[in-house]
Amino acid sequence: MTGVVAVGWLDEVEARAWRALVVASARLKAVLDAELMAAHGLSFGDYEVLVVLSEASEHRLRMSELAELLSLSPSGLTRRLDRLTRDGLVTREQCPFDKRGSYAVLTAEGLTRLRAAAPLHVEGVRRHFVDLLERRQLEVLGSALEDVLGHCPSRGMRALGTADQAREPSTQGSLP
Amino acid sequence: MTGVVAVGWLDEVEARAWRALVVASARLKAVLDAELMAAHGLSFGDYEVLVVLSEASEHRLRMSELAELLSLSPSGLTRRLDRLTRDGLVTREQCPFDKRGSYAVLTAEGLTRLRAAAPLHVEGVRRHFVDLLERRQLEVLGSALEDVLGHCPSRGMRALGTADQAREPSTQGSLP
Repeated sequence: MTGVVAVGWLDEVEARAWRALVVASARLKAVLDAELMAAHGLSFGDYEVLVVLSEASEHRLRMSELAELLSLSPSGLTRRLDRLTRDGLVTREQCPFDKRGSYAVLTAEGLTRLRAAAPLHVEGVRRHFVDLLERRQLEVLGSALEDVLGHCPSRGMRALGTADQAREPSTQGSLP
Repeated sequence: MTGVVAVGWLDEVEARAWRALVVASARLKAVLDAELMAAHGLSFGDYEVLVVLSEASEHRLRMSELAELLSLSPSGLTRRLDRLTRDGLVTREQCPFDKRGSYAVLTAEGLTRLRAAAPLHVEGVRRHFVDLLERRQLEVLGSALEDVLGHCPSRGMRALGTADQAREPSTQGSLP
């Protein structure tokens, strides 16, 4: 794993994997963002917020949890929520047991918009990602990146929806 | 590839791969961003701009090319460059042959800052990504995501640095 390059520099295989990850994830987000925005007036980031809230118990999450699941800073989350709350897709609620805490809550309108946008988004994920890869590539990619996430000292794994969660009735019909 | 779910919904393997890609790439960027910012006052996005310019001929790129390599909109690129130009790490230059075009150019100070930050960044890429994976996982991941990029109608592949480019003297010492 030390490679042929001195002082911990990345060798060719390592650099290709890293760059492909950075460039492909950015490119996929940009393409899906453009498609969602054109057809449904939602950014990729908006869509992510709606999905994560739709999968949460009672469609609500503490701001701190939501920020962690989306890998956003508190200020980044505030910016992300501004338009969604203005458009009535998400509301902010004070946490009754913790004066410092507040929740983000998916509204009925937010769920309606998410459901309307999901088919196009999933079709895009298929067209630009899933259908381009062999089954084995998808398995290795998922497993490898879950290993990476498992190492991160965060609750980011919760956003993955494990196999167990996927079998729970509460997440039937959950949106990708 | 149609899976067990109707109407093109993602099956478990497909959904895990997609979610792992989205969540892991966001998480890795956030972690590396925090490390770069704390030690070098650069965001992950800043670092990306400096790397891409450092690898370009004469350390310069048309704005349109830079935006495409970074999967940014024109306005997104403008925001990304504002702080870098204010800090003197990048300059904007008018294109002499095209009144509508302009270049982003890496300054000597920008290159110095990039070289100073690179060891920490590479160490972070190793610690949070490369060293957590088997060689075979890195190979499959790189190959799969290059397939995905190859399908995108863009020049995003150029940012990957192919094996041929890596052997050219001009990119010896290029920064990951």
